[in-house]
Amino acid sequence: MGLNCEYYVESDMSLEKAGETIGLEESTGTWTEVETKPNDIEYLTAKVSSVDEENNLVVVEFPDELFEENNIPQILSVVAGNLFGLSSLKNVRLKDISFSEEIAKSFPGPRYGINDIKKIVGAENRPLFGTIIKPKVGLPPKKTAKVAYEAAMGGVDLVKDDETLTSQEFNLIEDRISEVMEELDKAKEETGHETLYACNVTADNKEAVERAKLVEESGGNMVMVDVITSGFSTLKAVSEAVDLPVHVHRAMHAAFTRKRKHGISMVPVSKLVRLAGGSQLHTGSYHGKMHGEKKEITKSKRALRDEWFNHKPALPVASGGIHPGLVAKNLNYYGKNSVIQAGGGIHGHPDGTREGAKAMKQAIIAWKEDISLEEYSKNHRALAKALERWGERAEYDY
Amino acid sequence: MGLNCEYYVESDMSLEKAGETIGLEESTGTWTEVETKPNDIEYLTAKVSSVDEENNLVVVEFPDELFEENNIPQILSVVAGNLFGLSSLKNVRLKDISFSEEIAKSFPGPRYGINDIKKIVGAENRPLFGTIIKPKVGLPPKKTAKVAYEAAMGGVDLVKDDETLTSQEFNLIEDRISEVMEELDKAKEETGHETLYACNVTADNKEAVERAKLVEESGGNMVMVDVITSGFSTLKAVSEAVDLPVHVHRAMHAAFTRKRKHGISMVPVSKLVRLAGGSQLHTGSYHGKMHGEKKEITKSKRALRDEWFNHKPALPVASGGIHPGLVAKNLNYYGKNSVIQAGGGIHGHPDGTREGAKAMKQAIIAWKEDISLEEYSKNHRALAKALERWGERAEYDY
Repeated sequence: MGLNCEYYVESDMSLEKAGETIGLEESTGTWTEVETKPNDIEYLTAKVSSVDEENNLVVVEFPDELFEENNIPQILSVVAGNLFGLSSLKNVRLKDISFSEEIAKSFPGPRYGINDIKKIVGAENRPLFGTIIKPKVGLPPKKTAKVAYEAAMGGVDLVKDDETLTSQEFNLIEDRISEVMEELDKAKEETGHETLYACNVTADNKEAVERAKLVEESGGNMVMVDVITSGFSTLKAVSEAVDLPVHVHRAMHAAFTRKRKHGISMVPVSKLVRLAGGSQLHTGSYHGKMHGEKKEITKSKRALRDEWFNHKPALPVASGGIHPGLVAKNLNYYGKNSVIQAGGGIHGHPDGTREGAKAMKQAIIAWKEDISLEEYSKNHRALAKALERWGERAEYDY
Repeated sequence: MGLNCEYYVESDMSLEKAGETIGLEESTGTWTEVETKPNDIEYLTAKVSSVDEENNLVVVEFPDELFEENNIPQILSVVAGNLFGLSSLKNVRLKDISFSEEIAKSFPGPRYGINDIKKIVGAENRPLFGTIIKPKVGLPPKKTAKVAYEAAMGGVDLVKDDETLTSQEFNLIEDRISEVMEELDKAKEETGHETLYACNVTADNKEAVERAKLVEESGGNMVMVDVITSGFSTLKAVSEAVDLPVHVHRAMHAAFTRKRKHGISMVPVSKLVRLAGGSQLHTGSYHGKMHGEKKEITKSKRALRDEWFNHKPALPVASGGIHPGLVAKNLNYYGKNSVIQAGGGIHGHPDGTREGAKAMKQAIIAWKEDISLEEYSKNHRALAKALERWGERAEYDY
């Protein structure tokens, strides 16, 4: 079986030869023959399993025996290692990884699947929607909590920290978690609706685990990890340490995902996040401020949600420059098993955070009931005011 | 003071405006005005500090208060986070980070500096040279140890695992470390020369720390970490857990370092590795099988070696497709405070590993004494045979 990895390749060699070069570099070969090579290691050699000349794609099969189970850093060192630097290749992009059952099942996967999370917030029949506290940084814990309260009163399912907010002097995590949960509990008493708070525990591995435990002990109901900057190993450790769903941010990903011909696609990243225990992952917006390839977003979303060995499905998250006018454009692609988030698109509402949250929810209901925003906004003031401000276009379209 | 980050940027905006966009996205701004923004957070806003129109460079200054001390994942989430995905930028590359004293000093830095390591192997007046056990994978522990012994008898200062070898079934780390150290101790008894063994402990953070402790308890004298696949947090945890020098491999780096206009350069990676405690880091070969920009290699080498706050200097490592004929070409740039490594270029020697190691050492002495390889090989048989096989060119030049 092994791991079948699909690479887009450009080089002066044939695709077959390029695939062989990758396979040898990452398994039993080197650039010259060596006398230390024994005869019995053919079973470890990665080989080309298919070639698609039209699309410059080659699939390389890496035998299971090359890998350590339950060790993502080691797997990446093989299938996404030196090969990116080979002088003999001009461009190479890891597009997808197809895992063998044995390797895939050696990982824990998400503790909380889509249904588990939907049940918590009572959103069985609709997408979740959430907000990122804005501004990204600078609010003290009490003010953060007030914004969270307003958003919860407006109906959001999820409030999250921004990816750069961890535990700086102006907002220590121990103060923030208790203040925010207090306000969210208050909102729950008033509305009956539980709001998740994705508290960002991103730090060195051990410290992240300690922060996650603090969140759990403080009555928190979700933790958040920046997976690329802190490592898959940190995500997994956090997910194993606490009985909470993990919201996964991908800050830094576009350093290697953005160029279409080189680097790593979000598809394998999505699979690795699911293996490591992420319950929600940012996979991009079909329309917003961040760059995204529609095809890759679609494949990432499937990687998170499709039936896959014994692992629970995870929720794709659309985020970045979203406002009520862009909700339908995104949900048409993501569907109801997703999370749609707005930061500026909620807190920038002319009547403030609470009305901004209401406007987002109205846009979601309009989408669900297949009513145009124009029509629905006639009787929904919050939505009408959001549309007045931002219309139905993304910021960078203006 | 803050962190001054240099970005190469291409966009339809002016450089000034592009720098502002980056600074706002990564500090107090978002794409729209929000009512939750207080008036007193100007001190947290990242600002453009200089612009170089000719080279498309902009420097953004991020205030110290934006960061958590001693937290690399958080720092990366700011200076190397969402900005790579912004639709309004076509290309953006983080070229360098200039750290404030406060942030830089909050990190441990290398336990073992250049002089500490040179003293162990008695190489005060010359570069270190080492070998990667080949084939990369497939040898059992006993054979690995025999190859290590042969290399040590040939005079190498350093033997290392390949980056994909960790603790697979065919070569468990607990067996490998004891077998290899036994053979290296034997070689030391015979030659009086200590050989370092960079044993690859790459795994999830906690497991990597446990493996590093196992190496230390087994009499090992060095550990190795794949920093990009396992995370800076794992490197730091390993470096803090054991009193051993840490050899740092960079598998996967070229997914984001290779494209000249986008991603992250090796220069900030080198600085982060030094902050996190790496004693040696692969920074590329000026001539070999792996792609490398000479200018970036030079800056990376300086980032590791230059005087820098209270941190000990680390050794740059040239590796990948190197053989005796390429030693001078690399050492002319790297100088004597470096490590030069050959895998295939040693084990592929016509007379085997021991002679291959001797040939490398002869090439180093020839370089040091400024004698041409042609001249020096007249009286040095091992070198002569290596030159016969590979000449003085890199594989991909042929």
